[in-house]
Order: sequence, then C-alpha cells, then structure tokens
Amino acid sequence: MESPLFKLCSSISCTKTFLQPISTVNSPKLHSINKRKKLVCSAPSDSNSVCSGGGVFLSIGTHLIPHPNKVEKGGEDAFFISSYKGGVIAVADGVSGWAERDVNPALFSRELMAHASNLVEDEEVQYDPRTLIKKAHAATSSTGSATAIVAMLERNGTMKIANVGDCGLHVVRKGQIVFSTSPQEHYFDCPYQLSSEAVGQTYLDATVTTVEIMEGDTVVMGSDGLFDNVFAREIISVVGSYNNSADAAKALANLAYDHSQNSKFDSPYSQEARARDFDVPWWKKIMGMKLTGGKLDDITVIVGQVKSS
Amino acid sequence: MESPLFKLCSSISCTKTFLQPISTVNSPKLHSINKRKKLVCSAPSDSNSVCSGGGVFLSIGTHLIPHPNKVEKGGEDAFFISSYKGGVIAVADGVSGWAERDVNPALFSRELMAHASNLVEDEEVQYDPRTLIKKAHAATSSTGSATAIVAMLERNGTMKIANVGDCGLHVVRKGQIVFSTSPQEHYFDCPYQLSSEAVGQTYLDATVTTVEIMEGDTVVMGSDGLFDNVFAREIISVVGSYNNSADAAKALANLAYDHSQNSKFDSPYSQEARARDFDVPWWKKIMGMKLTGGKLDDITVIVGQVKSS
Repeated sequence: MESPLFKLCSSISCTKTFLQPISTVNSPKLHSINKRKKLVCSAPSDSNSVCSGGGVFLSIGTHLIPHPNKVEKGGEDAFFISSYKGGVIAVADGVSGWAERDVNPALFSRELMAHASNLVEDEEVQYDPRTLIKKAHAATSSTGSATAIVAMLERNGTMKIANVGDCGLHVVRKGQIVFSTSPQEHYFDCPYQLSSEAVGQTYLDATVTTVEIMEGDTVVMGSDGLFDNVFAREIISVVGSYNNSADAAKALANLAYDHSQNSKFDSPYSQEARARDFDVPWWKKIMGMKLTGGKLDDITVIVGQVKSS
Repeated sequence: MESPLFKLCSSISCTKTFLQPISTVNSPKLHSINKRKKLVCSAPSDSNSVCSGGGVFLSIGTHLIPHPNKVEKGGEDAFFISSYKGGVIAVADGVSGWAERDVNPALFSRELMAHASNLVEDEEVQYDPRTLIKKAHAATSSTGSATAIVAMLERNGTMKIANVGDCGLHVVRKGQIVFSTSPQEHYFDCPYQLSSEAVGQTYLDATVTTVEIMEGDTVVMGSDGLFDNVFAREIISVVGSYNNSADAAKALANLAYDHSQNSKFDSPYSQEARARDFDVPWWKKIMGMKLTGGKLDDITVIVGQVKSS
C-alpha cells in the first residue's frame, strides 16, 4: 500500500450523535398489523418504531414516495418493519412490466410483504431471512413479481440479510459505508425477481449475508429508486445530519425524488447506463453531450439507527 | 421498479465451468509452513491448494507482483492460504510510509500473516477471523502497520470475513458480483491499519461479515493493488475466462500490473481520486485534461473456486 503513516487517530471520530429517543409509531396507511408494532406499508408513510429489551436494536424511520405517475395508487413498492428481537426491516419492489398485461404490479409486492410480516415469528423461519422469503413467496396468490430484501437484527448485533434483485442495504459506521449488499440482475434494468411464474427466481437465488452491527451504526435499506438516484457519499452525508431516523429517511427519499426529476443530474443510474453503453446518439456525443438524469421510480427508504438498551 | 418483465430465465446461465481438478502445491518463497498445506508467502508466487473432505472447499490460486521499485525485497504485501475446513485465505499489506522512518514496511505484514497462519487451528480462534486477527496482531513484535483481511470458509458454505482497511474480497456468482467487502479509511489513501503503535486500529475495528457461498462461486481476494487498478466488471470477465484458479489469479495480477503502469488508463484509483477532488490543475482541466493512470503498488491476488467434495 502506497500510503502515508496515519498519525492522528484521535482527530478522526464519529460526529453522529443519537440524542433523541424515538417512540412514536405513526399509523401506516395499509395492511396495518398491530401485533408487536409490526407495520406493513405501501403508501406514503413516515413512521418510527422502537424495539425494547437487552442488546442492540433498530430505531426505525421510513419514507415512501411513489412514482409521480402512480401516486393515486400508492406506487408499487411495499415494505414492513417489526420490532421482533433487534428489529426486522424489509422492502419489496413490484416489477412495473406487469401493467402491460393488465396486472397491477403493486399487488404482488404488497402481498409478499404482508405474508413476510405475518411470518416473522414463525417457528420454521427461525430468524432466517431466506426462509422468511421462501415462506412468504410460497404464500402469495397474486400474479406479478417483485424484488425483495429482508434484514433481521439479533440482539447480539448479528444482522442477517437475504436479497433477491436490486433493492439494497448499506451499513454506515463512523461516516463511512462498511457494508453494502450487491444487486443481482439478468441484464441492465432487469433484476432477479420473485415471481408468480415459474420463470422467476426463488429464495434459493437470494444472496445471504451477515454483518456484525455496532451501537451507533446506521442501517439504510431502500428500493432501487433510492440507490439509482442517490450516491453512497450522499447517503453518508444525510444520515450524519439527522438525529432522528424518520427525518433521515424522509430527507433521503426527498433527495432521491429531487434527483429523479432532474434531467441534468448525473445520477448513479445514468452513470451505470453509460458504463453499459447506453448513451445519447453519436452525433450528440460529438457535441459534448452525454446521457444524464435521475430515474423516475417509486422510492422507499428505511433508516435504522442502532441503539442499545 | 421500472423494469420490463423477465421472460427468458433459461437464456441466462453461468458459462463458467470447473473442469480441472487442481492438486499442485507450488513451493512458497518465504515462511513455508507445511502443516496442512498452509502457505505463507510474501514474494512472487503462483500456487494452488486443494482442501478435501465433505461439503464445499476452495480450490485456490495465488499471484503476487511486487511494486516495480520493490522487486528485490519482494514488496510489502504478504498472504497465506490454508486448507483448514473449507479453506482460509488472508492478505496483509504493509504501509509504505514506514520506510521514511527507516523501517522495512514488509516486516509487519509478513509477521502478521505468519502468526495468523500458525493460529488458524488455535482453540481460542474457533474459526472466527476477527479473533484470528486479534491473536495474530497481539503476537507481532515488528514495528510497522498493515491492512489485513482474513476469510474462513466452513464446509457448509458459510464464509466469515474480517477486514481492517482496504484489502478486499469479491464473491462472483453466475457472472456477477454478489458480495463485496467495503474498504475502511481515515481519509483518501490512508486506510484503517493494524499497527505496532497504539495509534492504529485493532480487531475491534474490523468489519465482520458472513456470506453464504455456493458451489461454482469464485472468491477473489486482493490487496488494494488489485482493486485500485482493476474494475469489478474486469474481475468478473477474467474469472469467467479461466478454469484454473492459479491462471485466473495470475491473469488478474497481470492485468492490475499492466493498468498500474498505464498513465492513460482511467483506473478505479484515478476515478476515486477525482471524485475526492484530487485532479489536474485548472489550466489543464480547461484543456480537457483530467487525472488518469493506474496506481503503482504491490499486487496480491488470491482466487478461490468453490467446489464440493
């Protein structure tokens, strides 16, 4: 490594503080399941939850902004949060292509999250998010498909994540991202997806990872509407600027929304598109133009601040 | 998600095949420890190892290319591989800044890896890479500092990774990266590092992650000399082109070396530098110039193909 010596360790410190206990649980708009403060939501929401007991837990804030053309129906993302053990968070993102077949793409993602929420404490699940995805997927009866991510935090700080497709999760620690999931896709803009059809993926295709979480960490989960529009460095900056997880989730969702509407913004999505050789025509290129812009999409953000009790 | 339906699952398949059993263990140049085919190396090498028994295991190839100015001394990277359980792989990268204090930066990284190699089967380690780092670090007596990464694969497919600094590990599955470690740094080009001095980091600063590995996966571990010079998409391409892990490791190291010598190559390192506002002076910018080039460094690559026995 070609590096200078690091001499001033004490000058590097985490500036995030977590001063405000968060105890409000705002009402979800859909599929409200009250057992253990479990929430299933698929409409614009802004909610917090506190898990109690020994060890670490997530203090959770959420925010969902539907695609501008899908506001009336609430968009096609769905999510749930639960206070079980250290906390369970999950997002599913309905594949919009189903609309071409006169299928509401929201039905599958919402049903998937509703089943997952109900199965969190299932005996067979045994706190394994892949098994939770397996059982929730098997229980669906809607036609459609969705990407899905589930993260389950145990009190000892072990967070296990199962991920199918391009939802994602970052862990921010002391101002840097120490863990990220990796998206899975068949080709650009066509992610792995749980489906009502045999052609889709299953729990066996989930990437299963575990990360050791510490008090003071911030977990950021989202649909691709977040990660296609907001850079990792921006996520770090935003979560470092808010003491309240609900405020951080709202700020991240709003930032993603603003970028998604900005045709000049050189978003993660436009950079990735250019890297895959999707760009403006050659005659625009020689005029110095390039493909830019955010991506209009449903945007779901879940922020979990890791606290100890 | 704004995506078309995915209709043709069967058209997407992994084209990698693993036809050649690899059984040769070439002689390491330094610190050869023969118990259980355990190798500690810090000089140019190209070696394979096969772990045997039930479940999955790593078929390992390695390649180390020292910094061009450090060839005589073998560079400052060190690594070891072991066939214990499903396989253990580790890289340490000595911090070059110590040379300014008349300390050979290679001594610490080599000693750290030698201790780690000897401690793999230690009772207290209990197959936990963070504990292995803790004990190996505590055993060092050299002056210096190093980044370090250790990955331990169990027969059931669980691979646990502890990482301090900017060495890294990717898991490639069916032509895409499904898991990556995240580097930790104090500031640009100054990573977290285990040190002989109290100012450095310890095992407590390690990021600890676990990923469920499958037969057919390829694990790519390296020092920053690999990841600063080779893009993820190039790593995917190279590991998909070789049946033999030693050949893949050599090809990756050679690619990193070629890029490191190319002042025109827009490397991951130069892109990251520009993103952090390190660039050519303004008067060069208005002439359309930008900071480019690879990064001269020691380059260590370990490739582990996941097989079942």
